Amino acid sequence: MNKKDFANAIRFLSLDAVEKAKSGHPGAPMGMADIAYVLWKKFLQHNPKNPNWINRDRFVLSNGHGSMLLYSLLHLTGYDVSIDDIKNFRQLNSITPGHPECDITPGVETTTGPLGQGLANAVGMAIAEKSLAAEFNTKNHNLIDHYTYVFSGDGCLMEGISHEVCSLAGTLGLNKLIVIYDMNNISIDGDTSIAFTENIKKRFDSYGWNVIDNINGHDHKSIEQSISRAKRERSKPTIICMKTKIGFGSPNKEGTSGVHGAPLGSAEAELTRENLKWNYKPFEIPKYIYKEWSAIKSGSTLETKWNKRLKSYKKIHPKLYSELQRRLNNKLPSSLTKKIDALISSNDKSMATRKSSQVVLENIGPLLPELIGGSADLKESNLVFWPESKPFSKKDPSGKYIHYGVREFGMCAINNGVYLHGGFRPYASTFLIFSEYAKNAIRMSALMHLPVINVFTHDSIGLGEDGPTHQAIEQLTSLRIIPGMSVWRPADVTETAMSWKSCLDKIDGPSSLVLTRQSLPELYRSKIQIGYIKKGGYVLQDCNKEVDVILISSGSEVHLCVDAANKLKHDGLEVRVVSIPCLEEFLSQSKSYRNSVIPDNFDNIIAVEAGIGVCWDILIGKKGAKITMDSFGVSAPGDVAMKHFGFTTSNVIKQTKKLIKKNG
Amino acid sequence: MNKKDFANAIRFLSLDAVEKAKSGHPGAPMGMADIAYVLWKKFLQHNPKNPNWINRDRFVLSNGHGSMLLYSLLHLTGYDVSIDDIKNFRQLNSITPGHPECDITPGVETTTGPLGQGLANAVGMAIAEKSLAAEFNTKNHNLIDHYTYVFSGDGCLMEGISHEVCSLAGTLGLNKLIVIYDMNNISIDGDTSIAFTENIKKRFDSYGWNVIDNINGHDHKSIEQSISRAKRERSKPTIICMKTKIGFGSPNKEGTSGVHGAPLGSAEAELTRENLKWNYKPFEIPKYIYKEWSAIKSGSTLETKWNKRLKSYKKIHPKLYSELQRRLNNKLPSSLTKKIDALISSNDKSMATRKSSQVVLENIGPLLPELIGGSADLKESNLVFWPESKPFSKKDPSGKYIHYGVREFGMCAINNGVYLHGGFRPYASTFLIFSEYAKNAIRMSALMHLPVINVFTHDSIGLGEDGPTHQAIEQLTSLRIIPGMSVWRPADVTETAMSWKSCLDKIDGPSSLVLTRQSLPELYRSKIQIGYIKKGGYVLQDCNKEVDVILISSGSEVHLCVDAANKLKHDGLEVRVVSIPCLEEFLSQSKSYRNSVIPDNFDNIIAVEAGIGVCWDILIGKKGAKITMDSFGVSAPGDVAMKHFGFTTSNVIKQTKKLIKKNG
Repeated sequence: MNKKDFANAIRFLSLDAVEKAKSGHPGAPMGMADIAYVLWKKFLQHNPKNPNWINRDRFVLSNGHGSMLLYSLLHLTGYDVSIDDIKNFRQLNSITPGHPECDITPGVETTTGPLGQGLANAVGMAIAEKSLAAEFNTKNHNLIDHYTYVFSGDGCLMEGISHEVCSLAGTLGLNKLIVIYDMNNISIDGDTSIAFTENIKKRFDSYGWNVIDNINGHDHKSIEQSISRAKRERSKPTIICMKTKIGFGSPNKEGTSGVHGAPLGSAEAELTRENLKWNYKPFEIPKYIYKEWSAIKSGSTLETKWNKRLKSYKKIHPKLYSELQRRLNNKLPSSLTKKIDALISSNDKSMATRKSSQVVLENIGPLLPELIGGSADLKESNLVFWPESKPFSKKDPSGKYIHYGVREFGMCAINNGVYLHGGFRPYASTFLIFSEYAKNAIRMSALMHLPVINVFTHDSIGLGEDGPTHQAIEQLTSLRIIPGMSVWRPADVTETAMSWKSCLDKIDGPSSLVLTRQSLPELYRSKIQIGYIKKGGYVLQDCNKEVDVILISSGSEVHLCVDAANKLKHDGLEVRVVSIPCLEEFLSQSKSYRNSVIPDNFDNIIAVEAGIGVCWDILIGKKGAKITMDSFGVSAPGDVAMKHFGFTTSNVIKQTKKLIKKNG
Repeated sequence: MNKKDFANAIRFLSLDAVEKAKSGHPGAPMGMADIAYVLWKKFLQHNPKNPNWINRDRFVLSNGHGSMLLYSLLHLTGYDVSIDDIKNFRQLNSITPGHPECDITPGVETTTGPLGQGLANAVGMAIAEKSLAAEFNTKNHNLIDHYTYVFSGDGCLMEGISHEVCSLAGTLGLNKLIVIYDMNNISIDGDTSIAFTENIKKRFDSYGWNVIDNINGHDHKSIEQSISRAKRERSKPTIICMKTKIGFGSPNKEGTSGVHGAPLGSAEAELTRENLKWNYKPFEIPKYIYKEWSAIKSGSTLETKWNKRLKSYKKIHPKLYSELQRRLNNKLPSSLTKKIDALISSNDKSMATRKSSQVVLENIGPLLPELIGGSADLKESNLVFWPESKPFSKKDPSGKYIHYGVREFGMCAINNGVYLHGGFRPYASTFLIFSEYAKNAIRMSALMHLPVINVFTHDSIGLGEDGPTHQAIEQLTSLRIIPGMSVWRPADVTETAMSWKSCLDKIDGPSSLVLTRQSLPELYRSKIQIGYIKKGGYVLQDCNKEVDVILISSGSEVHLCVDAANKLKHDGLEVRVVSIPCLEEFLSQSKSYRNSVIPDNFDNIIAVEAGIGVCWDILIGKKGAKITMDSFGVSAPGDVAMKHFGFTTSNVIKQTKKLIKKNG
């Protein structure tokens, strides 16, 4: 028995899986195997037989390309990841895909690969832990009390998002966040000195972190001591800089970029076996190694102890207990629907939909303590706070309003982590245009099926004077085409309330609310029509006789269509107005419902939306028309900008007549 | 005469313009007026009557919402920005839009507003200066020798991109980059302490910058001394932290977030006049102030002197001179076309289009010293280097290959700055999926009409095992819908070469090359067909008889269509295959050309592309069909993933027959 073999088990599972798949990244697993062994063996509080235990320590592999490190750990410690799963690494329908995916593999906390985001998710998890603890822990019941550990490589720390979230983590004093930086000095292009010479100690010091520097990442004792030190820190997050050798153990490739992202090759694999004295065949792990690694018993003991605490908590704090259960099970309070219905029937004022959204939040916010979120430094513009909401801060982690700072990407990736932790429905907000800064985090919400909510205000050229740098043109489409994303662009208070409701009701993926800066009047709808809003599209205003033209639209432009339809009636034209607050939802309805709104063989259809119009082609076909944008906006007052680009009643009327003339 | 009035002129031009527009950001111009006065009066080398003088100092207002600061400076120093232009601030068709736009206003170096990117552009300008100097300066002729100054607020430094580009600027030792940080401790949401507590001095120190801390931004002498110190630095970029009061001079709003982004209101404007003893009406600037500010004479003297140097340079180094002229005038060498033609006729190998692109670069790279760029740490994957290309570094700024590190957003925004400087055609590369990390910088290229080139490889599920985090699905569409962006997705070496040619020929906007990881065979084309590639779409394979079905496709899927067409012939079906490497280009062709490729009233059209298919609806209409993606990808070998989602010859055949059956 060789004590080094416990870490070597990771090295060879990884090396052999990559070898078999002829694809993958052996470098990081081989380099970080010793650290992983010490962390998982000596520190990580988890239960392999219940990966969803709420009080487990979270482990995030931010350098997700090292997925075999994580799969090896899950396999060795007793999760439902078998040796056959390992052998199927990177194959179709396996639970061991190229990068870790949290909705596929038990024990994977978050989907990583896009660099820097795992770290951001971990910051979110640490925020969630602190917030949930502040809300539910009592003097004698420390129910929520765990650490969040992150493995991070150079790549993650080069990405801008690492700056955003680590700076914020320092401000928020997330002391139970422990990042282990794999300082191997090798990036894909070679030695990191060619592009990455910053002093990590100073950098994290500047963020107000506890920095533990210069640890030998292959010396178990040093690793253990450093993590112990990190756990004792009471007010700052910790980063431990561990020096490692990428591809540790490979006689010819260790310490080179050649071992980062390609199989070692059978000859070098053999040499590595000899070098590390690993006398086992591929995928063969001797029993004593499994025994050493297994966390099944210890995990069960841990959770059993915790369950006892929970039982006592239930007895003493029955209300808190049932609220916690509701939150962890992601159930909305039953009072929500009533509140929204009341709100709809009581409102008839003109207001911007961003303001409508705030009215909704003022009503539902107090009912939903699971709502946590805020804005990327646009609080008074995005209007996602309500009177009772107070800031989440180092001093007071019981607040639920997060001042993310001007950090859109960090914000959205943090929110993914908050949701993944459990207990919350996070929301983020910024101007629609700056959804682009957060683009890949928004995509990751969809890929992970996380029901986070984005509130994107200032949704078109209608925002006016700030001009083309701030006016969303292609962003609506860009969000709509993300698989699994629901984009709601409501036209007034009623649609905004129903949109918020739909976002909250959806639990298998993200939603985006797209809201105006400018004021909009309230439209009349029957109760039946209100019920149809959730279908994403419905007949808002119909005609008595046969339909001549259908105008389809969303958000602020719906009002133009209604106005045009009323005026066209005087010209003897029968116009149906269809409001489509959520195109994706509408397209997912039954064919018969869709046909009842827009008949299949109907030609005279005009789509009106102040954005790129490509998404509407499927509804209007080759014979319809569009009043949409095909250029960037302009700096001018909102109504002037709208007029400049043809978003006026008179232009809708003109284009309608033109289309009828054309189609005959 | 009050010496403070020189700075106050900026304050009141800004305040009054915002007041008149009833919209805008007075806080930053009022806070930074003193710094601006000292910098522009004592340091900035520029010529208002020739904003394009290549050796001018560059001034970047990264906090672009303070646009009135810049417009005031341009107006006062003598650029073609009149007092009427100032009065038209934020109005339709004015040259003083809400945020500075470089294609609209003389003297505006770059379009800013999206925070952090101005700073990144400036890093690009500093790289361009260093590179151009290394290439063209001679022992006795210091032709290119200027500074790049940046004004930056808290917002820019919170954004992740600031980390990416400042870390890189430190590594590259860009000593002629001088950033002035407006340290006013106020962000939109209030005191910066709520979200931004990092120690800027330590942070920039960690990047290897020269940090000049704790300067009073209202004390002209301190400001002057600090900038002088910065200019003397020989190996590091400098950041000067200047303490200022936002909205300086407003008795009730100075130092508060209330003055950031809204007019002061007429009462407070009046009080500010009294407080600063400014006895002039709105937009009234006394002559002595204009006289003090004017840089027309000094600017003319500067450029005249430089022109003398240039004249002598021309005499002594005629070849260098004419090459510099070619580069500054953005003319491609005449040898380029011949080289590309030769390349096309000589090739018949199967290879991945990323490899084809490298073959093109190997051929054209040596002809184009204006090509500068690289990859975000994916050199061996993106293949955008060629044998002669050597790295740009602190030690050797004559290299043209930039190791950007894992910094996609920084890379693309830096490249915008490199182009804006003049003398270069920058290119950037990463995996297509990670274009999302750089999204808004890519949009800014289009908004500014900059012909930068993006090389995005690993373009679909075809990349295989890396899985859904790395497989582009919606990104092709997301790029295509950016106004002014040309997205080229070639199918083989010939199309790749022609695509590169089209990207280089285009000088009014950006292009993106979207390339495969996997190998593709070379297709046969006649000379006429090759000539049509630049039209974005053309008939690649036609039928002898009447067309039954048209298959339209791009990139790797074109090969499936050709294969299917050949097999369908055996079933008696006549199939035309249309290759559309650039949809936007194709859609911009004359109606008659488009009709010759895809007849207007033809129904049986199938689009085949391994991505979200929404862009094809306009061509296929309601009666056509699509073989495209509507979900995320999977981790599996590339060919298995392709098969899994129906990208096979047999499925194209099946769907073709189905469509014919349906349409009759």
